[in-house]
Amino acid sequence: MQTTDLLQQIEFIKEIDKLKYIQRKTKLFNSDRNENDAEHSWHLAVMAIILSQHANAEVDVLKVVKMVLIHDIVEIDAGDTFIYDAIKNHTNTDEERLAAERIFGMLPRQQADELIAIWEEFEAGETNEAKFAKSMDRLEPLLQNTSNQGGTWKEFGVGYEKVYEKKKAIKNGSETIWAYAEKLIEDSVTNGILKKESEI
Amino acid sequence: MQTTDLLQQIEFIKEIDKLKYIQRKTKLFNSDRNENDAEHSWHLAVMAIILSQHANAEVDVLKVVKMVLIHDIVEIDAGDTFIYDAIKNHTNTDEERLAAERIFGMLPRQQADELIAIWEEFEAGETNEAKFAKSMDRLEPLLQNTSNQGGTWKEFGVGYEKVYEKKKAIKNGSETIWAYAEKLIEDSVTNGILKKESEI
Repeated sequence: MQTTDLLQQIEFIKEIDKLKYIQRKTKLFNSDRNENDAEHSWHLAVMAIILSQHANAEVDVLKVVKMVLIHDIVEIDAGDTFIYDAIKNHTNTDEERLAAERIFGMLPRQQADELIAIWEEFEAGETNEAKFAKSMDRLEPLLQNTSNQGGTWKEFGVGYEKVYEKKKAIKNGSETIWAYAEKLIEDSVTNGILKKESEI
Repeated sequence: MQTTDLLQQIEFIKEIDKLKYIQRKTKLFNSDRNENDAEHSWHLAVMAIILSQHANAEVDVLKVVKMVLIHDIVEIDAGDTFIYDAIKNHTNTDEERLAAERIFGMLPRQQADELIAIWEEFEAGETNEAKFAKSMDRLEPLLQNTSNQGGTWKEFGVGYEKVYEKKKAIKNGSETIWAYAEKLIEDSVTNGILKKESEI
């Protein structure tokens, strides 16, 4: 039984290597090199560990870490959807559900079900762990874009109102981090690296 | 206090972005593209979660995950050392200790001390968590090299005996995974992708 499990797990480990090829829109810090999903997931996991003291509610840190480590694995099949994409909504597409079933389904059934449930919990964004995990997912590109003089905001003409709308989800996970993030957004407008919609 | 902590943590989060530029010798699966340390650390973290049932002893999975997520951060200053390097020993160099103090030291002191202790525990390889974390660190490049028809073994002329010597540390973390890994090494000799020292 252990060996059968292991063989399935090894196939899964090989399959998810593909996450390293999925390019995000966002660039690394102070860089013009796109970040890939594996790097992004690693960064969020370290952030979740480092920043958990700031969560609004007590969180199960291991669960948050699992969420951020696996949250983008569905993109191996479904591709990366830009958060400001006006046509395709990122959340819970049928394509992503099929991808979760195929990829996590390579694992022993009980483990597959556990990871699919964790992924769905993240996507739903209702538990304390999911709220905090989503805060991490919103914070990293905010830090990157400000380090890149506007980054994807400038590149894709995304205005202050849209950024604020997406980023305010950080507040659900952490009031403290949101206070910092909100100021960073306001400062970006002052510094001219983020424009109001009316100015674009 | 929370805000002072957060500002230090944000600086650390920006600093460790540099891990994405540290190239390992090993290539991605079925690929000629080098893996970087951030991708590697992400992969080990998912592996640790997926494979923890095979650990020889009960392990604190969150601690193992922390270990593998941060184990290479010192390489931002100290650089990557090839595991088969005959001159420079990877373990516990003064350079790495200084790097740990500088980089983790950017965090609030208590958190810095916690992460330095976790990194040292990993390096010492004596606790159940460190043994299992090291199994993951040995297993991933083994899977990569076999997927790449010998990979770094072939590229750098590393023979069976050296590979076996390094990889047998997997056994300390998991007998089950070692049984699989040992067979993979033996099969690699049979398949001709790994040579005995006498044949190199």
